[in-house]
Amino acid sequence: MARINENYLKLPQNYLFTEIARRVKIFQSENPNAEIIKLGIGDVTQPLPKVCLDAMNKAVAEMGNAETFRGYGPEQGYLFLREKIAEWNYKKRGLNVSAEEIFISDGSKCDCGNIQEIFSLDSKIAVADPVYPVYLDSNIMAGRTEIIYLPCTAENNFSPAPPAEKVDLIYLCSPNNPTGTTLDKAALANWIDYAKKNDAVILYDAAYAAYISEENIPRSIYEVDGARDVAIEFRSFSKTAGFTGTRCGYVVIPENLCGTTSSGEKIPLKNLWLRRQSTKFNGTAYIIQRGAAAIYSDEGQAQIKTLIDYYMINAKIIRAGLTAAGFTVYGGINAPYIWLKTPNNLSSWNFFDELLKKYKIVGTPGAGFGSCGEGFFRLTSFGSRENTLAAMERLKN
Amino acid sequence: MARINENYLKLPQNYLFTEIARRVKIFQSENPNAEIIKLGIGDVTQPLPKVCLDAMNKAVAEMGNAETFRGYGPEQGYLFLREKIAEWNYKKRGLNVSAEEIFISDGSKCDCGNIQEIFSLDSKIAVADPVYPVYLDSNIMAGRTEIIYLPCTAENNFSPAPPAEKVDLIYLCSPNNPTGTTLDKAALANWIDYAKKNDAVILYDAAYAAYISEENIPRSIYEVDGARDVAIEFRSFSKTAGFTGTRCGYVVIPENLCGTTSSGEKIPLKNLWLRRQSTKFNGTAYIIQRGAAAIYSDEGQAQIKTLIDYYMINAKIIRAGLTAAGFTVYGGINAPYIWLKTPNNLSSWNFFDELLKKYKIVGTPGAGFGSCGEGFFRLTSFGSRENTLAAMERLKN
Repeated sequence: MARINENYLKLPQNYLFTEIARRVKIFQSENPNAEIIKLGIGDVTQPLPKVCLDAMNKAVAEMGNAETFRGYGPEQGYLFLREKIAEWNYKKRGLNVSAEEIFISDGSKCDCGNIQEIFSLDSKIAVADPVYPVYLDSNIMAGRTEIIYLPCTAENNFSPAPPAEKVDLIYLCSPNNPTGTTLDKAALANWIDYAKKNDAVILYDAAYAAYISEENIPRSIYEVDGARDVAIEFRSFSKTAGFTGTRCGYVVIPENLCGTTSSGEKIPLKNLWLRRQSTKFNGTAYIIQRGAAAIYSDEGQAQIKTLIDYYMINAKIIRAGLTAAGFTVYGGINAPYIWLKTPNNLSSWNFFDELLKKYKIVGTPGAGFGSCGEGFFRLTSFGSRENTLAAMERLKN
Repeated sequence: MARINENYLKLPQNYLFTEIARRVKIFQSENPNAEIIKLGIGDVTQPLPKVCLDAMNKAVAEMGNAETFRGYGPEQGYLFLREKIAEWNYKKRGLNVSAEEIFISDGSKCDCGNIQEIFSLDSKIAVADPVYPVYLDSNIMAGRTEIIYLPCTAENNFSPAPPAEKVDLIYLCSPNNPTGTTLDKAALANWIDYAKKNDAVILYDAAYAAYISEENIPRSIYEVDGARDVAIEFRSFSKTAGFTGTRCGYVVIPENLCGTTSSGEKIPLKNLWLRRQSTKFNGTAYIIQRGAAAIYSDEGQAQIKTLIDYYMINAKIIRAGLTAAGFTVYGGINAPYIWLKTPNNLSSWNFFDELLKKYKIVGTPGAGFGSCGEGFFRLTSFGSRENTLAAMERLKN
């Protein structure tokens, strides 16, 4: 038999959500009448905005007519979508990002997982702890072994300082999954400074940018001086417009952002990514790209605001409910995630069991996202209003 | 600056279609009134089947209602689609492939490009010459250097024999792009025998299976005994149902097909692929999967047959036209590609120029697919009927 990529065997088994499901199943079978409320899942529940539905219906009709039918699209994504993104998400905010620097994909998970391919296998990686597992797992699968963890704790406001040593690639996520906290301009400026001094590239995951409510928090790393020299940004329609099951995201790679060869030659990363995508990807469905583009109009923006407001009112309800019940809470102001300290130094999993058994509420144990998540717990605001209110009512009693 | 993956610099520049576009542009600017007919492109032109449009419209409506809204789908693809594929493409043909062995994706290019990730970096690869560039390029990008080319020539009926030496991974494509020829059961049996004796895995690209018209040609490698022990199969909706811009494909990995670790442990390849997809992919859009599933009904099958018949009548017209004009032609009976020998031993590119200048027809020089493509030329049946007929009329005169 052919030899396998043995790096896959070094991956941590993805026990987190399997283990949650297992415990919930046992509890439900022992308590068949218990009405369990699930606030653990990081998936949206509300329908797509009407502008997106209308645009997709129109696109489906176009695919049914030889005159307007679309075959293979441009590998970088349709210009109609890239231009709208450049205009609405960047130019309107005074940021210099052009359509030529934007690459449309079928979602941020793919982009965050694939981006490491264009870098050397001996790159040293820095990731937060706790962290969204894709950054770490995709590097382990490729065979990278030099990984630095950046502890994100209440003590450092979940905003880790750059490491003392040199790393090559830094994954930052703001607003953060799982902590729901953000990095401010000073923190990002510090990272950009570190990246410049250490010839590092920042991989900035801003999939939750649309949830930022505070004016002084950057929506894009390019709001901070010097970011174009060191940072790639990931954005997504998943949480912005309810596209988790519809699949569209994009990467921004600034024109002049380069990596080097072993002989010191500078190579634009944009060219490498285009080559990667042209070889191993064939574009996002035309119908889906039309749906995504529809959010970039006054009407579209109003509709996604309604959607995000719905979830962020849930977040407010959860924050208020938890605070009233005596919990210490983080996040939930600029993100759909609430990160709470478990009471009485309970472990994340013991708190999971207590919450399930006493209150019939399911959340996500922080320890599942990394060792610094131990003693924390994640709730999400993606449930329905009724369920969110009902869960907080239970905690009150 | 961070160090790049220097394997990318070893890639051949993708000059083929750029160079074609450049020569066509020059000719058109020198001959502004010339009506050029393009029979070079491997992309469909006819609208999607009505069953697909209806299913997608229904799915769009479901996404607009909280009760029927779909967020993240199963990473392997929705069961409703996997079950239909297992039933219609395999069970109805007497083949033992279950829904659990099928992995839905956003297209075969991605699957063919990504599959190498689950194998060891020191795997030795065999690819045909001429060949679809993705097999080769994805392996070069990963850093694999041991590559064996299998010459596909008129002398061997474009059906290469296994090499004398041992290789680990064998890419086979039937019906073939670019030659339009197929591998018969005896040829596949020979490859399966080789794979068993050499502990190799066959990566079988059957993206054009729906174009097979002759009964004795296998639609799936699993029609041949022993294939489940050694072969992964790639299939696609792109050419089957006009999905090149709609994006859906799938991989079949048999339950018991294993690779080995360096210590000899057997690992099911299916598990590795599921882990790869779960980490770096987030499923194909629900709307698109519903569209794809719609072809699996009597009505759906009738509609895709009409679509494929349209292109295959073009293929017949091209074969007849070229033969009458004195060309030696291959393919075009079980595939939408016609592979012709250039007359008077002209090089592929010289013939390209002659065809463009004398007849105002654009095709694809065979040399662009590998050195054994030199002296050959590819025409496709994906044009409109009028253009196909007009092109053959020009050659007659």
